[in-house]
Parts: sequence; structure tokens; C-alpha cells
Amino acid sequence: MNAPAKSVCLVIGAGPGNGAAFARRFAAAGHRLVLAARDVASLATIAADLPDAHPCPYDAADPASAAEIAQIESRLGRIDTLVYNAGAAAFGSIEQISLDDFEQGWRVNALGLAAAAKAVIPGMTGRRRGNIVVIGATASLRGGANFAAFASAKAAQRNLAQSLARHLGPQGVHVSHVVIDGVIDSPRTRERFGERPEASYLKADDIAEAVYGLTCQQPSAWTFELDLRPAAEKW
Amino acid sequence: MNAPAKSVCLVIGAGPGNGAAFARRFAAAGHRLVLAARDVASLATIAADLPDAHPCPYDAADPASAAEIAQIESRLGRIDTLVYNAGAAAFGSIEQISLDDFEQGWRVNALGLAAAAKAVIPGMTGRRRGNIVVIGATASLRGGANFAAFASAKAAQRNLAQSLARHLGPQGVHVSHVVIDGVIDSPRTRERFGERPEASYLKADDIAEAVYGLTCQQPSAWTFELDLRPAAEKW
Amino acid sequence: MNAPAKSVCLVIGAGPGNGAAFARRFAAAGHRLVLAARDVASLATIAADLPDAHPCPYDAADPASAAEIAQIESRLGRIDTLVYNAGAAAFGSIEQISLDDFEQGWRVNALGLAAAAKAVIPGMTGRRRGNIVVIGATASLRGGANFAAFASAKAAQRNLAQSLARHLGPQGVHVSHVVIDGVIDSPRTRERFGERPEASYLKADDIAEAVYGLTCQQPSAWTFELDLRPAAEKW
Amino acid sequence: MNAPAKSVCLVIGAGPGNGAAFARRFAAAGHRLVLAARDVASLATIAADLPDAHPCPYDAADPASAAEIAQIESRLGRIDTLVYNAGAAAFGSIEQISLDDFEQGWRVNALGLAAAAKAVIPGMTGRRRGNIVVIGATASLRGGANFAAFASAKAAQRNLAQSLARHLGPQGVHVSHVVIDGVIDSPRTRERFGERPEASYLKADDIAEAVYGLTCQQPSAWTFELDLRPAAEKW
Repeated sequence: MNAPAKSVCLVIGAGPGNGAAFARRFAAAGHRLVLAARDVASLATIAADLPDAHPCPYDAADPASAAEIAQIESRLGRIDTLVYNAGAAAFGSIEQISLDDFEQGWRVNALGLAAAAKAVIPGMTGRRRGNIVVIGATASLRGGANFAAFASAKAAQRNLAQSLARHLGPQGVHVSHVVIDGVIDSPRTRERFGERPEASYLKADDIAEAVYGLTCQQPSAWTFELDLRPAAEKW
Repeated sequence: MNAPAKSVCLVIGAGPGNGAAFARRFAAAGHRLVLAARDVASLATIAADLPDAHPCPYDAADPASAAEIAQIESRLGRIDTLVYNAGAAAFGSIEQISLDDFEQGWRVNALGLAAAAKAVIPGMTGRRRGNIVVIGATASLRGGANFAAFASAKAAQRNLAQSLARHLGPQGVHVSHVVIDGVIDSPRTRERFGERPEASYLKADDIAEAVYGLTCQQPSAWTFELDLRPAAEKW
Repeated sequence: MNAPAKSVCLVIGAGPGNGAAFARRFAAAGHRLVLAARDVASLATIAADLPDAHPCPYDAADPASAAEIAQIESRLGRIDTLVYNAGAAAFGSIEQISLDDFEQGWRVNALGLAAAAKAVIPGMTGRRRGNIVVIGATASLRGGANFAAFASAKAAQRNLAQSLARHLGPQGVHVSHVVIDGVIDSPRTRERFGERPEASYLKADDIAEAVYGLTCQQPSAWTFELDLRPAAEKW
Repeated sequence: MNAPAKSVCLVIGAGPGNGAAFARRFAAAGHRLVLAARDVASLATIAADLPDAHPCPYDAADPASAAEIAQIESRLGRIDTLVYNAGAAAFGSIEQISLDDFEQGWRVNALGLAAAAKAVIPGMTGRRRGNIVVIGATASLRGGANFAAFASAKAAQRNLAQSLARHLGPQGVHVSHVVIDGVIDSPRTRERFGERPEASYLKADDIAEAVYGLTCQQPSAWTFELDLRPAAEKW
């Protein structure tokens, strides 16, 4: 007799900060984890600490990567939850960034989401269940002077997520978008913003808790968008 | 030796739908409940089913009601969580409603929140903790032609909630705003919208779960606003 | 033979800054002006410089004032354009303002607009033409910590304006909302913010030009909302 | 003695509808026009009716096209106004469109704007004047289920425009974004939506008037965003 299948959670952009926290949270809830990112060494480190976690080398900026998803599903089971956490972009005004920077930001944030969504949707709509959580930022809603690439890419991602939510909701698939409005605590941000008060940092584990909570909502009351920021943040 | 004090949750607008569901959810989490509304008979019914639940006759539209809050606090303990769920208003275009309707909508939704907030804030900031959750609606964000009173009142309430959030966040008090975007399942709405598919109704218990979740967020990652709608809602 | 009737423009909140600039702009376009405000001396000064300008003592916070509008219309002609420019409110956080401050802010900004709209609508819808321009502020869209009264009142006003726009548009009446995002140049603001660079002030005459422009739009392409800010404003 | 140089207006996306209307409006105001689009025959037709109008074959989706702008400027003079009107995208849900459709939509709407902006900015900031008007749509603000490509591309374009506005405003260059919310009257839309009432169509000439008006604003009171819709539009 077989045990019931575990839920499968795919984290794209499974880096050492948020990504690892998402993995820990869904692992704690009993999910099988697939960790997708470019940095193979980092993936192995994160996976090593978790039960039933599977590293998957993945370049979110390259839509061909999404072909991996069919293989993951045949090997490890249908994906129940996709957390799309890929999302860097060059910093600077339109004059400071190159068009390649601009394009690369869009590839990672928007095209990569479109490709991954296309890959996971059939399995989700077929079973009329599933979660896609997209990790946004302040720039998803606001085009700052020095965020020409990032803000444009994040807005492209957000409106795509909204289109997905409207398209997939009636088919039983929950798409949500999280606006992270602040600086996430990490060795790197500590070094860069060290003078900030402790209470001004977002903790990755608290973000992960909110993301996990979204995936537990009942279909009568789904959230599309929530913002997350530290109590002490000026906004 | 005394048992540790229970958390106290005050629900203003504790009617038979959402309000009762909020009460049940916080009671299940071990809170002492104070149920405030105008309809004394209904309050008694709701309270009767819950342990440690205290009815409190309260007219949210009358700011003098907020004087009750000091008395509640001295009798039952400092309020940890305020759920502000009062919020009706006359339906109709500007030509169909009276200025009295317009004023009454604002009194219930906005002035009543201001009064209640003023009453609970000292206890919350003094202990640097507490939650104020404000229950909004689609109309909080959108002024529909036939919602002249309701949309204006709800927007007044929402911007007040945002001001509260920015003012109180750095003092350790979490203010959030829930946008309920859809029709809540109830005998009344079933009668009015009976032809709708089951999946198009919001369930009060699922809304309550989301509201409770907001009050459990860690201060490193607080949400100000989340929307809730049924999977099948057109939005 | 009678000359063709002049268009009549009513400015509520006809103070020495924006209000006077609106009056000058519409007078320059050949409108008969009705200038409504509480300060009779100031009204007289503004009217004295304009042809065919009529002072009208008016307390925007008191909805009974709107009864004046019927009298104005019978004496001076149907109002073609209402510019609703009344809009002060007490500054401060929820703890710093009184509930009376909170109410007064709403009365001037929202209730006064509702009352004036009710008074001018029949004349406008009867002729299937007319303009209502509502003067908002940054706080119409954002609830800052120290704008508990103003932001709540301005949001109430904005959502009412949106409801009016949706209700009246199909009846041929154009309702619009202007978000003034910055500090308006005046002796008072110069004194208060004197150190600011010249280019960081909004000029009342430039605001008036934009407001006048809104009233000239053809019904195939009406604007509901536009923002105005100085080139040098940080936003 | 030389006559004073005419202002130069570049319309990218100079098709027979809006684009031609923009050209007519700026020509009427005495501007020299450069009309950029892929369809050379259509460009010639539009240019033939205008004085001092110069067709420029241009593929907005290809950033290499922007190299044309330097040549235009050396031949015809510095560009004072760029109207960015390129903006189609495939219709359909994420499942109905291809990733190529998705990319192409972004190229035309967002990458093309980035490339053109980079090309015109030095001439504008060098003289501390200039206008960039970006033509958006309902989908710029809303991700509809069947607008996966268009809404994502338009949001990318809008947040880029906002970043440009914040970056360039303090340098004297005015960037604005027009949200066209409705169906524009044209032989093609008449055929597709023929049953609609006359008053439900936007007229291209009225849109052009609003766009021209934006470029006439004084720097003390610049608009970033305005919406345009027909009086009879349901929104």
C-alpha cells in the first residue's frame, strides 16, 4: 500500500535568503521541495539541510529552463505550489543602465514567470488546485528614478501575475503576489545598511510564513496581493 | 498564583455574519471576546455560544460609545486586538441618497473607527503591542456610481487606517486593512443573489481565518492591506 | 435682441491662492464668476479685479449653504462649471487631532462637495452638460501618519468624486479630480518653506490652466484624474 | 537672418489612427513632424497631408532602430517632443499566447521606449527642456485574464515612464503617461464593435488634443498621468 503522495513545492530563485526560507517553511509543512536556481553549490547547501529536497539547476532568465519542469513532474510528482522568487535587476536610472540590463531584468522577472507558469498550469488546472506565489517588491508598484530596469521588470511581472490570477482563479488555481517593501535581513544587507535599527529589517522566515499562509487560504477567500514591511519601515 | 491574562479581542460590528465568525476564530485561539454592536439580542445569541465572551451594546456611529472602551478595559483587561467591522451605508447614487445617509455612512465607517482607535491606542502603545484590523470592501478602493455614500465612507476609513498604520507601526502596534471583494455567504445574500454559483460566495469563517492570520504576523513582516475574494469572482 | 448667455462658473473655496487663480482663468475665458467662501472681505477683493464676478458668502462645511446655489442660479444663470476647492483640515496624527477636527475636515472636503453636487446636478443633467472639478491633494491617495484628518477627508472626497463621475458621465456631465502634489506658492508657504528652490513650488495660475483645460475636453476623451506637481518635486 | 528653429516632434507608432492625429495636432501648432513606424506606405500617406512632415521607417520592437534618432536630430534638429505610441500585443490568456508573443509585446511597448528615451534624453537634458508622452491603455493598470502579454508589456512601459519622469523632471524634461481607457473610433473598431453607441468611442483627435495639452504645461504644474475615456464608458 502506498503512502499518500506528498505535496510538491517548486521554488524558483532558491537562493540563500528568501528562497531558503521558503524551502524551510514548506518542508516543515511536509512538502517535497524542488529548489531551482543557477548556483548549483548554493542549491546543494540549502537542500542538504532539508528532508526530501531536490536541487534543480535552473536559469530563470532562459525560458528553455522551463522544460525542466515537465521532467521534475514526471520524476517527483505534479507541482502543487510554485513560488516564483527569481528577481534581480541592474540598479540605476535609464541613463546608467544598458538596454541589455533592461532586457535581462525583464527576462528574470517576467519572461521567466511566464515560462514557468505555462509549464505548471496544465498540471494544476487538470486537478483544479495549485498555488502560484510571485514575490514582488516596492518597485512592482512604483517606478523610482534609479530603478528604471527593476521597476519596469517588476511591474511587468505583477500585471502578468494579475492576469494569471484572473485567468486561473475560476479554474481552481490560486495566484498571489507579495509586495516586499523593505530591506531583508542578510549578511549582505547588514554590511550595506548596517546602521539601521534592528526593527527595520524584514526577516526571511517571517516572509516565508506569510507566503505559506497564502497557500493555505480556502478558495472562498483568496488574496491576490499583500504587502509586507517591518514595523519600523517608513512608507 | 494567577493564570496568565488572556488576550482580549474587541469586535466592533459584531453582527451575525462576519462579526460572529471573527468572534469564533479569536475565541478558538483562546482570546477573551468583547462583542460590540447595537443589536443587543443578536449579541447575546453570539456570545452564548462562546466561552468568555462579553456583549457590549455599542453604537459605532456615535463617538460617545467609545467611552465604553475604557470601562471594558478596566473590567476585562487591556484590549490586544480591535477588529473594526462596523460598516453599512445607504445604497444609491448621489441623487438617490440623502445628505443624512451620506453622513451616517461616514459616521459608522470612519468617525467610529477614529473614536475607537483613540480609545484603544494608549493601552496598545503603552505596551508596544496590539492589533487593529479594519474591514473594508471593494468600495474602499473604487467609487461606483451607486455607492456615493458607501464608497466615500469606506475611502475615508481606509485612508484613516493607513494613517494609523504609519503612525502606530513604529510604536509596535499593527494596523491592517482587509478589502473584502465579493458577496459574503449569508441567508440574506442567498436570498438576494441565490442564482450565483456556490463558489462565488465568500465564507465568513474563511475571512475570519485571514483576519486572525494578520494578527499573528511578526513585526518584521507586517501586512497593511490584503484583498479577499472567492476563486470564481470576476474582478 | 439678447446677447448669448455667458457660461457661469462657481468656485467654492475662493480663497486668495488657488481659488482666485481659478476665478481669473475662467473670467479670462469669458465666464461669469460666482465666488463662494466664508471670508467676505477676501471675496470682495478677489471679485473687484474681475469683470462680472459675484461674491457669495458660503460655508462649505455647512450643507445648508448649498441652498444658496438655487438662488445663484435664478439670479445669475445655471451653473456650467463647479470648481470645488474647499479643503482644509487639522494637521496631526490621530492622537493629536480631536474628533471635532476629524469631523470638520470631512465636512469641508466631502459633505460640502456632496451638498454642492446635489444642488448643481439637476441644472447640469437637464441640459446634458456641465463640469465639476474637485481639487484634491497628495493626501487624497495616501494616508500619512500626520494627516489622520486630512487624508481621511480627502479620500472621502475623492471616492465621492469618482462615484459622481461614473454616475454623471453617461448623462453628459464631466466630473474630474485634480491631485495637487506639492506646495503651492504663496506668501504663507514662502514664509513656512522659504528655503526651498524656486522650482519646487506649484504656481496657482498653472494649476488653474490645467483645471480650465479639463473643462474644455470633448466628451469622447474625458479625464477623471490628473496629478500636478512641480518639475523639481520628489515623489 | 535665420528664422527661429521650429520645434521637432517625433511620433513613434505613427499609424493611421492615434498616430496620425498626434501628427496633425502638433503640425497645427507649428511643429516639424517626424513620423516613425514600420509601414512605409502608411507613413507616406500621413506625411503627404502635413507641412514639414518627415516619414521615418522604424521598427519600435528593435532597439537598433533608435540609432535613427541621432540621424534625425542631425538632419532635422533636436527633438523637442517624443510621443511614444507604439504598442500592440497579442490578445489572449497565458495559455493562448506564445512566449514569442509575450516577448514581442514587451519589445514594442517597453524595450522600444527605453531605447528611444535613451536616444532623445541627451538632447533634452542638454537644453533642460523636452517632452516625452507615453501612450498607455487600460491594461497599463490592470492585468485582465485575456491580456497576459499586453497587460504585462503595458505595465512594464508605465513603470519605466514613471522612472523616467522622476529621473528627468528635475532636469527640466517632462515625462507623462496617458491611460486610454476605451475603444478608439476607427474603421477597424467600427467593424468589430459596430453596435456600440456613438458616444462610447474615443476620438483620436480628442486624444491628440489632450496629449498636446500635456506638452504645453508649465514646469510648476506638470502632470505625470491622466486617463481618457468616453463620457458613456462603463469603468
